[in-house]
Amino acid sequence: MNKRPLILITNDDGITSPGIIALVEAMKDIGNVVVIAPDKPQSGVGHAITINATLRLDKTNYHNVKKEYSLSGTPVDCVKMATDKILQRKPDLCVSGINHGSNISVNVIYSGTMSAAVEGAIDGIPSVGFSLMDYSIGADFSASGEIAKIIAKNILLNGLPKDICLNVNIPPLKLSEIKGIKVCRQAKANWKEEFDERKDPSGRSYYWLTGEFINMEKEKEDTDVWAVRNNYVSVVPVQFDMTGYSALPALEKWKMNDSFAKKTLFYKSKK
Amino acid sequence: MNKRPLILITNDDGITSPGIIALVEAMKDIGNVVVIAPDKPQSGVGHAITINATLRLDKTNYHNVKKEYSLSGTPVDCVKMATDKILQRKPDLCVSGINHGSNISVNVIYSGTMSAAVEGAIDGIPSVGFSLMDYSIGADFSASGEIAKIIAKNILLNGLPKDICLNVNIPPLKLSEIKGIKVCRQAKANWKEEFDERKDPSGRSYYWLTGEFINMEKEKEDTDVWAVRNNYVSVVPVQFDMTGYSALPALEKWKMNDSFAKKTLFYKSKK
Repeated sequence: MNKRPLILITNDDGITSPGIIALVEAMKDIGNVVVIAPDKPQSGVGHAITINATLRLDKTNYHNVKKEYSLSGTPVDCVKMATDKILQRKPDLCVSGINHGSNISVNVIYSGTMSAAVEGAIDGIPSVGFSLMDYSIGADFSASGEIAKIIAKNILLNGLPKDICLNVNIPPLKLSEIKGIKVCRQAKANWKEEFDERKDPSGRSYYWLTGEFINMEKEKEDTDVWAVRNNYVSVVPVQFDMTGYSALPALEKWKMNDSFAKKTLFYKSKK
Repeated sequence: MNKRPLILITNDDGITSPGIIALVEAMKDIGNVVVIAPDKPQSGVGHAITINATLRLDKTNYHNVKKEYSLSGTPVDCVKMATDKILQRKPDLCVSGINHGSNISVNVIYSGTMSAAVEGAIDGIPSVGFSLMDYSIGADFSASGEIAKIIAKNILLNGLPKDICLNVNIPPLKLSEIKGIKVCRQAKANWKEEFDERKDPSGRSYYWLTGEFINMEKEKEDTDVWAVRNNYVSVVPVQFDMTGYSALPALEKWKMNDSFAKKTLFYKSKK
């Protein structure tokens, strides 16, 4: 590529968060950046879009970038707004993050950070989401910025497979403590929900969603959870075709159309 | 199964919407139902969960069901709340809908209706989302109720493949006009965004998200879009493992660890 690549940057923690500051600084070394991010934190919004409310788009000056905007919507809204109203052409790369906290395993599906990357992929843009596995206020994003640069350069060099984006999780370590970068699959895991019930001053109950992460594949070395727990950066290819192809043959054998035929005959005979 | 099955019902249009009324009535014929649904419309919220705000859970009496509740959260919150606080045991089935509008193809990923079913699957509950492809206020859910019964009974009879839920879309027809039930894959499609820009009374811009659905596989008879456009009910198996397995070999060949080694050597030499 002769020209500097055009890089779209978004996140889910909001346009002023430390993670996106680190990501913008990292990407400035590689290409021309355009930033559009939510005006407030949007963690856990998944692939939400704003269809029953209006959106505000505001020019901002947090990142010292010519084209930067905050949007009163979700990360996916940001990608959509960028492609329709802000960018003159399809960007060479869409990066999301760096998320303040983990998006390994099944968390990919709840994550606003990753949903922005998935939306980029749906739009045919090479896309990647970065997450630092550190929720603390003082989280150090410097190693993550270097990792983001390495992976972004590799995407620009190699191109991503069709209809695939990347989910990158970075353990909370110094760069020199990280063992390497590992291509993995999503570990099978879920959350054991435990809603924390409290009473408001009037005595009425309210709830906080909390839970415990249950990894069902603890010893599986090809999973993202194993990688990050063993001091590797995990890179999982993520697809937006959610069809469970392996289930198609079993479903084809069901007798749904027999039941359907009986029911419609019944209805027809009643006429 | 000797006992009547326990059926959890939720949706994304809200607990008073016509679609969930039709679904509750249909499921009462099959089993014992428990209803927990959002207290207001949640279309397009995808797999969002509520982690930065509290939730209110209220007992309601819209459906003449012993256990029915509204929740001030998302469809996924509803499934989580049900499993943690409402149900004494894992339900035999989780049904979501009937959505007032289509969830074919890539819309599965934006859909609150389908995200509730996916959440059920993550929790190991046989789950299915139903959508009627009719946005009009006067949409007739009667055929959809019959289809929901047929498919629910088939799930209870056959069991679902592991880690799979179903995405069912029903064309806006009378039961006698529907040709049958077709097992399909998710068609490749996306949305061409067109934000509708307007001016508020102060002259400031605001935006409505609109768009055009672009089906890239118009003639493919194994897709859900083809099925519903040809008067079939589409049934797509949906998985929550988003790993793009076919992309793993290509990514394994990238030289990310070479770049990483160079970078860490550089950092180590600076010490």
